[in-house]
Amino acid sequence: MSNALFRRVAIIGFGLIGSSLGRAIKQHGLAGTLVAIDRDAPSRDEIALLKLADEVTGDLAAGVADADLVVLATPVSTYAELGRAIAPLLKPGCIVSDVGSVKQLVLEDLAPALPPHVHLVPGHPIAGTERSGPGAGFASLFEGRWCILTPAPGTDRAAVAAVNALWHAIGSDVVEMDAEHHDKVLAITSHLPHLIAYTIVGTAVDLEEDIKSEVVKFSASGFRDFTRIAASDPTMWRDIFLNNREAVLEMLQRLTEDLFALQRAIRWGEGDFLFERFTRARAIRRSVIEAKQA
Amino acid sequence: MSNALFRRVAIIGFGLIGSSLGRAIKQHGLAGTLVAIDRDAPSRDEIALLKLADEVTGDLAAGVADADLVVLATPVSTYAELGRAIAPLLKPGCIVSDVGSVKQLVLEDLAPALPPHVHLVPGHPIAGTERSGPGAGFASLFEGRWCILTPAPGTDRAAVAAVNALWHAIGSDVVEMDAEHHDKVLAITSHLPHLIAYTIVGTAVDLEEDIKSEVVKFSASGFRDFTRIAASDPTMWRDIFLNNREAVLEMLQRLTEDLFALQRAIRWGEGDFLFERFTRARAIRRSVIEAKQA
Repeated sequence: MSNALFRRVAIIGFGLIGSSLGRAIKQHGLAGTLVAIDRDAPSRDEIALLKLADEVTGDLAAGVADADLVVLATPVSTYAELGRAIAPLLKPGCIVSDVGSVKQLVLEDLAPALPPHVHLVPGHPIAGTERSGPGAGFASLFEGRWCILTPAPGTDRAAVAAVNALWHAIGSDVVEMDAEHHDKVLAITSHLPHLIAYTIVGTAVDLEEDIKSEVVKFSASGFRDFTRIAASDPTMWRDIFLNNREAVLEMLQRLTEDLFALQRAIRWGEGDFLFERFTRARAIRRSVIEAKQA
Repeated sequence: MSNALFRRVAIIGFGLIGSSLGRAIKQHGLAGTLVAIDRDAPSRDEIALLKLADEVTGDLAAGVADADLVVLATPVSTYAELGRAIAPLLKPGCIVSDVGSVKQLVLEDLAPALPPHVHLVPGHPIAGTERSGPGAGFASLFEGRWCILTPAPGTDRAAVAAVNALWHAIGSDVVEMDAEHHDKVLAITSHLPHLIAYTIVGTAVDLEEDIKSEVVKFSASGFRDFTRIAASDPTMWRDIFLNNREAVLEMLQRLTEDLFALQRAIRWGEGDFLFERFTRARAIRRSVIEAKQA
């Protein structure tokens, strides 16, 4: 128990991220009691079977009562309603956090629902796989990965430090930034790549049957990587795009302009333009490798 | 020598693909003599140092004279000129092949340059990495991967069978198809994914400095995969786009329409449309996994 940072931690939503966080918390002994809250009965059975938590419940009141830390790990579209539901159940001084991929929304949807006597410290671990559900999680998912915290100005520093310590203890590098800035950065590093992957895979789905079977057969030539990205959870991604609309549309506009410039160069046979563009893009790969993110 | 399928094999261009093919041929003892032809002196030194071939030369005449098989592994833009240069040097019955990513061009640029007493069997191994040069190759690159052959109708079947046997011997699954069909399939499975990856990475390069450094930092959230694809050889890709123009523009048109449909759904908050599209895209991932191409 000497490692425990919190007496009682409740994680709402025990999917890939929620269950991975739960596993990591248990493995490192960071909570006196870990509670898994999931509204899906088959998921609860799986959590109990895999012994992923000390308590498993579908009842929010039973789950969050007396918790020192409550982490939302459900699709971000649930935050407003969940916030209203848990607000009267939280004890004074409770820290509320989340793992959502968009962060301005947390301040808009979740913050207003919570009572003043709790501390909201939104978080976003930059980690994941294309798999979903409690069985897909694993304790080492966050090791060596970034976790971004986006507390509003004026948030209790001790609460921020406690959430920081939790992610640090499970192997993440923690960084703090403004929610708006987070959403802009993630729009280009994560949301746009996923949107493009969904698009190109969708375009392939609509192809004539004779070509479609060959797209799968010869997918190792590049397409394969896009299908992996496009296998991510549809509900989660729908919510991300709907809730980071402005930043995604802004980045998409830039992308479209750049794509049209390349399209034009292909049409008119402007090889020098293509070569120069491709060479610039190649340089950024080196930066990614140097930053040990490859 | 009992494995040798050819007495003398000359590979022109000893980069990633050429040198990998050379390594595989040597490892499996498929050639009596393997000749590496490269016009780049530092590359020749590296090939000699690494003992990748029995003969290393920058001289086409010395290299292809008396060869039973000549494989072009240079950018496809070189084919017309190379074809004219080697035509008078090839012995009757010689098989000419290549490893280029576009195949109609081979019949347009290379075939007319060759004398009637040689056999042209174009090939395209669906394998590669984002690295370049003779040092980047490895013998197992083609194991378990597809190799597509696109001989013109009427090509000598014994010559096709010989090239087929070579790829089969180094571990590839060989399939034969029409050059036009090849270019259409590869436009969507390979060329479009690369174009999109180059575009999105280029868009990121143009971002304001403060965001750009963070794009690299948080690239593990999706962007990273695109930087790997966009690290591929710029010359090779310039040539591919210029030489598969029609098919790429056709697929790009479809992609743009689909992208605009998603963009519109994001702008107008049409969650059901996004969810349905994302769910369809996810299904194709299962096909890729079932086809053992994941």
